[in-house]
Amino acid sequence: MKRSYIKNVTKCIGENVQVKGFIENLRISKSMVFIILRDITGKIQITIQRENSPVSNHLVSSLTNDSFLTVEGKIIENPYVKLGGIEIIPEKITAESIAESLPIVRRKMISKDNKKNLEKSKIDQRMDYRWIDLRSEENHLLLKVQTTLAQAIRSYLLNEDFIEIHTPKIIGTASESGSDVFEVKYFDKIAYLAQSPQFYKQMAMASGLEKIFEIGPVFRAEKSYTSKHTTEFTGVDIEISYIDSYIDIMKFEENLLTYALKQVSDMYKDEIKEYYDYDLTIPTTPFPVVKLKDLYDGLEEEFGYKIPDSEKNDLTTEAEKLSYDWVKKHYNHEFLFVTDFGVEKRAFYHMRDENGVPQGYDLIWKGVEITTGAQREHRLDRLKAQAKEKGLEKDVKFYLDFFKYGCPPHGGFGLGLDRLIMLIFNIGIKESMFIFRGPNRLTP
Amino acid sequence: MKRSYIKNVTKCIGENVQVKGFIENLRISKSMVFIILRDITGKIQITIQRENSPVSNHLVSSLTNDSFLTVEGKIIENPYVKLGGIEIIPEKITAESIAESLPIVRRKMISKDNKKNLEKSKIDQRMDYRWIDLRSEENHLLLKVQTTLAQAIRSYLLNEDFIEIHTPKIIGTASESGSDVFEVKYFDKIAYLAQSPQFYKQMAMASGLEKIFEIGPVFRAEKSYTSKHTTEFTGVDIEISYIDSYIDIMKFEENLLTYALKQVSDMYKDEIKEYYDYDLTIPTTPFPVVKLKDLYDGLEEEFGYKIPDSEKNDLTTEAEKLSYDWVKKHYNHEFLFVTDFGVEKRAFYHMRDENGVPQGYDLIWKGVEITTGAQREHRLDRLKAQAKEKGLEKDVKFYLDFFKYGCPPHGGFGLGLDRLIMLIFNIGIKESMFIFRGPNRLTP
Repeated sequence: MKRSYIKNVTKCIGENVQVKGFIENLRISKSMVFIILRDITGKIQITIQRENSPVSNHLVSSLTNDSFLTVEGKIIENPYVKLGGIEIIPEKITAESIAESLPIVRRKMISKDNKKNLEKSKIDQRMDYRWIDLRSEENHLLLKVQTTLAQAIRSYLLNEDFIEIHTPKIIGTASESGSDVFEVKYFDKIAYLAQSPQFYKQMAMASGLEKIFEIGPVFRAEKSYTSKHTTEFTGVDIEISYIDSYIDIMKFEENLLTYALKQVSDMYKDEIKEYYDYDLTIPTTPFPVVKLKDLYDGLEEEFGYKIPDSEKNDLTTEAEKLSYDWVKKHYNHEFLFVTDFGVEKRAFYHMRDENGVPQGYDLIWKGVEITTGAQREHRLDRLKAQAKEKGLEKDVKFYLDFFKYGCPPHGGFGLGLDRLIMLIFNIGIKESMFIFRGPNRLTP
Repeated sequence: MKRSYIKNVTKCIGENVQVKGFIENLRISKSMVFIILRDITGKIQITIQRENSPVSNHLVSSLTNDSFLTVEGKIIENPYVKLGGIEIIPEKITAESIAESLPIVRRKMISKDNKKNLEKSKIDQRMDYRWIDLRSEENHLLLKVQTTLAQAIRSYLLNEDFIEIHTPKIIGTASESGSDVFEVKYFDKIAYLAQSPQFYKQMAMASGLEKIFEIGPVFRAEKSYTSKHTTEFTGVDIEISYIDSYIDIMKFEENLLTYALKQVSDMYKDEIKEYYDYDLTIPTTPFPVVKLKDLYDGLEEEFGYKIPDSEKNDLTTEAEKLSYDWVKKHYNHEFLFVTDFGVEKRAFYHMRDENGVPQGYDLIWKGVEITTGAQREHRLDRLKAQAKEKGLEKDVKFYLDFFKYGCPPHGGFGLGLDRLIMLIFNIGIKESMFIFRGPNRLTP
C-alpha cells in the first residue's frame, strides 16, 4: 500500500489507508490506546481497542512519544474525536523507529490537574537537540517560509535575466578589511573563508556578466553575542552593471523585497499569525529615504537621542532601533533607506561623489539593518587611492587587477536571508536558522 | 537616454540609441575608426568618420581592446557591414574604463597575412585572469546554462513540495570519514569545513521535514590533479523520507535529471552545438541498471578489462570510463546506475540488506561518476554497529544522536553541479567553473 499524506486521508471515510509519522501524543489505558500521529501535512488520531485489535500488546508497550510509525487501517467517522471527527482503526502498525525519552520540552504543556505542567526548554538547550526542536509546526513553517522567500527572490532575478554564480568560499587573501575572517589550513598554505562574495561578484561585472546573484553561505569571525549576529549565515548577494547611480540599486532592492514579501504573505500570512501571533506587512514603494545627518537631527529633536558629533558618521545600534519609531511616525512605514554615511565607516570600494560622500546606503527594516548597498568605484586610479587611504592596498591587490582591463560601472547589495526570516517572524536569530553558529556554538 | 541591449537595437533603423559594452575589436585608420562593441546580448559596429565626427581624436587615440564604452548615436543601415548590415554613427562616446594591454589571449586569432596569428592562452594562464577569460560568448553560455540547470532542479523539487535548507559549512567534528577535510581556526577551537551536508540533511529527516534539498558549496581536501576534481564545488544534495528502498531514490534521480537536462536542451541546445560543437542528448527513462559484478564480467568478456577480484568491490576509474562503451553497446544510453558495491567501499551510513549488500548506487554519465545515492540506515543499533566496524563510532557520536529520538526511513543522493556542466559541454572541470580551486590554485 502506498503512503498517503495525513491531510489527504481526512476525506477517505471507510477506506483503507497507509499513513506515516511521528507520535505527537500517546495515551494508553487498560482497554484503549490513543495515538496522535503527525506528518508534515497534519495530524490524525489512531485508536486501538486493545482487546480486539490485530496490533499486539507487545508493540503497544514499546511505543513512546516521537517514535516513528507506519500505520495501515480504516478511516472512520467518530464525532467524539476532537481532531476532525475522524480516526484510523489500525490493521497493522510498524514501529520504524522507537524514540528514547526526549531530552527537551518542545512546547509548554499544561496538564489538566496543573500538576505535571512543563515549561518549554530554553533556546540553548533546544539548540543542543535542534532536530527534536525542529519537529514542531511552527519550525516547519519557518523553513517553508525561508524556502518560499529564497525562491521568490530567485524568480524575480531570473525574470530580469540575472545569472546565478557560485563564488569560491575559500579565498587566498583576507578580503575587504583583513579582520574578522576565519583562517583555513589549505594544504601547506593559509587561506580564509569569504566574509562575502563582494570581490567575486564585482569580478563577474568585469567579466561582462552584467547582472548576477548568489545565495550562499558567508562567514564572519565576530565575537558577537547579540540576538541578530551569527558566525555563518546565508547571504543574498546581487550585483548589477550599467547603473547610473546607487539610487538605481535602492529602487531595485525595494522592488525585489516587496515582491518577495508579497509571495511569502500570499502563502503564509495566516499561518504566521496563527503560530507566531505576528502580522506580516507587505511594504509599499517607494521606501522612505533619509540622509544620516537628517536622521540624527530628527532623533535628537523628536526622541531626545543625543550622541557626540564624532559618532554621527555611522548608525549606532541605538539609533538603528530608534529609526523605526522615526519612520513609523513620519511615513507609517517599516523600511528606511539611510544614505550619506561618513567616508570613514564605509568600505574603500564604495564610490564617492565630488564632495567625498559615499554613494551608498543601509536599509533598515523595523530598526534592524538588513542591507548595505552602493555604487562601486570602477575607476582603477580612484579605487587604488581609496584602498591606500584605508591601508589595504597590498591586501586587495588581486582585486584591483579586476579593474585594469576594462570594467563597466556597477553597484549592488547584500542581504541576510536569516535576518529577513528573523524579522518576518519577529524572533531571534538563533531560532530563525536551521542550525545556528556562534562563537560558542559549533554543534550539532 | 536609457541604455538598450544591443540585440534590441538591430531593428531601430534611423533611431537614436544608447548602447554600452566592451570593445571586442578596434580598427583605426587615418580617416576611419571601426569599433565592434559587445554586451551580453550581442555585438554591433560603431563607425566613426574621423573628420566629421563629434567624437574627439583624443578619445579615439585612448581606446584599446576590452575598454568599456557608453555610445550614443543613430542606427543606420549599411549593406557593407558584415555584422547584420547595420552600424551606429556615434554622437557621443564615453570611455567608462580604459583597458590596459591584455595579458592573455582569449581566443585563437588568425590574421589575414598569417603573420600575427595568436594562439589561445593555456587554461592555467587564462585562469590567472579568469575575469578576462570569462568575457567570451562561450563562457557566458556556460554560466547561463548553469543558471538554467540549477533553477530547473529547484523548480522540479519545489513542485514536489521539497523544503530548501542551508546547512552549516563550519562543523565541529570531521565528518563522514575523518580524512580529506580542511581545518578551520574557529576562535580558540579547531573546526572543519563540511565535505557534504550528508549528516545535516539526514538531521532534517529526523526533524520531520520529509523532503529537503540544498544547493551549496562542499569542500574536499584532496590532492587530486585530474580533469574532474576540485577542492571546492557546488553540490546538489537531496534527501527523502518514507522511501521503500534505494530504488525509489534512483527513480527520483533519473526523473529529476531528465527534466533538468530537457530544460537546458530546450533553451541552449543550439548554442552548445554552435560554441562547443557538442550535442547534448536528453536521456530516456528508465536509465539502465547493472550490478557491479555483472559490469566487471561484461567488461572482461567484451573489452578484455581484467583486474584482480580483490579490487572488484569498487568501480575503478578505468572501469568507470569503459562502462560508457558498455552501456552504449547494450542500451544505447549515456547513463548507467551501478549497484551492489562491496561493503568495504561504501559509507557506514548506507543501509545493508540481509546479505550485507549496501542498498545504494553510483550513477555514471558518459563514463564519469556524478552521484552516489543510497537508502540510509536509520535504526540506531545497526547504524552504531556499522560506524564501529569502520572505526568511526567516536567521531560520529553527534550524528548517531539524530537517530535516538525517532527517525523515519529515508535516503538520498548528492550530485556535483560542476561535473554536470563539465559533461554537458564536454570540457574539463577547470573550464566549467566560475572560479576553479585546486591544491595549487587559490586565486583569483
